[in-house]
Amino acid sequence: MAKKSEKELSVEEKFELIKRNTEEIITEEELKELLRKKKNPVVYWGTAPTGRPHIGYLFPALKIADLLRAGFKVKILLADLHAALDNVPWPVLEKRYEFYKEIIPLLLQAIDIDTKNLEFVKGSDFQLKEKYVYDILRMSTLVSIHDAHKASSEVVKHGENPKISGLIYPIMQALDEVYLKADAQLGGTDQRKIMVLARERLPQIGYKSRIEIINPLIPSLIGGGKMSSSKEESKIDLLDDEKMVEEKINKAYCMEGDPDNGLLPFLKYVLMTIKQDKGESFLVKRPEKFGGDVTYDSYEKLEKDFIAKKLHPQDLKKALAEEINKLLKIIRQHKERLESISKEAYKNN
Amino acid sequence: MAKKSEKELSVEEKFELIKRNTEEIITEEELKELLRKKKNPVVYWGTAPTGRPHIGYLFPALKIADLLRAGFKVKILLADLHAALDNVPWPVLEKRYEFYKEIIPLLLQAIDIDTKNLEFVKGSDFQLKEKYVYDILRMSTLVSIHDAHKASSEVVKHGENPKISGLIYPIMQALDEVYLKADAQLGGTDQRKIMVLARERLPQIGYKSRIEIINPLIPSLIGGGKMSSSKEESKIDLLDDEKMVEEKINKAYCMEGDPDNGLLPFLKYVLMTIKQDKGESFLVKRPEKFGGDVTYDSYEKLEKDFIAKKLHPQDLKKALAEEINKLLKIIRQHKERLESISKEAYKNN
Repeated sequence: MAKKSEKELSVEEKFELIKRNTEEIITEEELKELLRKKKNPVVYWGTAPTGRPHIGYLFPALKIADLLRAGFKVKILLADLHAALDNVPWPVLEKRYEFYKEIIPLLLQAIDIDTKNLEFVKGSDFQLKEKYVYDILRMSTLVSIHDAHKASSEVVKHGENPKISGLIYPIMQALDEVYLKADAQLGGTDQRKIMVLARERLPQIGYKSRIEIINPLIPSLIGGGKMSSSKEESKIDLLDDEKMVEEKINKAYCMEGDPDNGLLPFLKYVLMTIKQDKGESFLVKRPEKFGGDVTYDSYEKLEKDFIAKKLHPQDLKKALAEEINKLLKIIRQHKERLESISKEAYKNN
Repeated sequence: MAKKSEKELSVEEKFELIKRNTEEIITEEELKELLRKKKNPVVYWGTAPTGRPHIGYLFPALKIADLLRAGFKVKILLADLHAALDNVPWPVLEKRYEFYKEIIPLLLQAIDIDTKNLEFVKGSDFQLKEKYVYDILRMSTLVSIHDAHKASSEVVKHGENPKISGLIYPIMQALDEVYLKADAQLGGTDQRKIMVLARERLPQIGYKSRIEIINPLIPSLIGGGKMSSSKEESKIDLLDDEKMVEEKINKAYCMEGDPDNGLLPFLKYVLMTIKQDKGESFLVKRPEKFGGDVTYDSYEKLEKDFIAKKLHPQDLKKALAEEINKLLKIIRQHKERLESISKEAYKNN
């Protein structure tokens, strides 16, 4: 979809822009209604400062860009208390928050997001206030241990002897929709059960339920399931240097002709989306003897060539690593400061 | 033990006064140390405004009297939020609190408590403050669902599909020791596991553990286990009229010669304690043909006579009902106002 400024987009166009690349919207009807009724609705995306963010974070960042273009005001919740409820040790919590507070804006800069309607909110700035806490307690009398445990099971590392914190987590996430005055929440499929819990429970304590915009979880670029910030080898860190990115991509699982790997989803959901929005094409350089340079304007064409073995993993990897390095350039310019915060934030980790 | 004013009591006497009629003190050594070091330590007793208080509440009231005489400053926590966490509907919570706030002081007046060093605190006045809530969250990351559930199992009505609220309950009770600046907590044996959890966990978040003074649970005066404010037939309500008291006592299970009933524990822990402290004796009126009037200066003598069938249940019941009615007199003077609050507080109950 070519870029259009906000005022040019119709409700239908806005809706399609928000919907593209998503897994599910609960509900589509409500979203259309919202777009019809409000020119600048509010959506929130929460990220808990747990492990170091990786390039998978570009995916929600792109959806945030879409939402901004569709006229939304976007609130990014840096959910420090949620991180603690998900096992981040309390003594390093503030440093983790600082790290996210520095690096997330750079991540958004990497994809040229217009930050005019973007706001960062720190969880502990409002989640310890009386009214919020009163609502935690009200919700706690409604939600069963069983339901809260289930809702958070894909988000919180419960471990063998699960703590109460993991049950408070989804309740607070539900209330964040209210206290951030959000009309909608954006999150990955791992958040789905918490989002559904929010929709079910908020009306029981007198609040309206919100629209849930659910991104698919994109797999690890390198292989081994979901890209996880806690598994170093599964992710490309936002601060990895050029050589490291090349090496990691090079080692990534990718069989010739078999689309079941981590590279193609990243190309589909992230890189080719960026390229298309910019009206650029993706260049794969090749020696003449292997067919010479080739460019792709759409992901579909690229996937077709890959499956037909007209695009070799080695060439794709090289080109992809180059593109990722270009994206990360702006973040790397702040590497020294970021690494210095990270050293404190992730010590003994 | 005859009454002595505070300054006359030695540390050893204070200790014995506090210990009498208790089930357990965790630990006795710490209590002795406290009495040696502090002239006016702080103890708190919490009561959640759930069901209507019954005459069983005279028992902790007497222990509060002992603690005051031993130089303690006593804080009575009217734990409104705890009541909600234990299934009191949020809409009637404030009315329940009001009812307790009116009736508990009258209960203390009924046994002539010197209220100079007594303070009432409402839970929600401090339990929604930032620092307290931050500590709830810190505790929630330490305490497992399993342990919290077990700790609260004798206090909270968990039901078949237990709610998260029942797990937050014991964490808050532990923190109350800190935020009420208490050196000790007073509670019944049903509270024991929560108290032990508090002792174990508070030091893990940087607070000292407190002394726990544990009262035995006195059985229902009338029979059928623990006297419960939610079972109308098992309790004598503080607002029952004279005739109702007589009738309930009359119906109470009590076999001649068998001390296994609810009347004797009440006599031991409440009535005869009051009598002894006042230097009064307990008069059982009887027709000449059944042995004539008899008075008791101590519970031991009374129990001995009862077992030896020298004291018939019918005579005992009559005398006991009379004494209870005397005790409740002062509360009944406020019956109209109390019933009016109660009507709102316990509607649809």
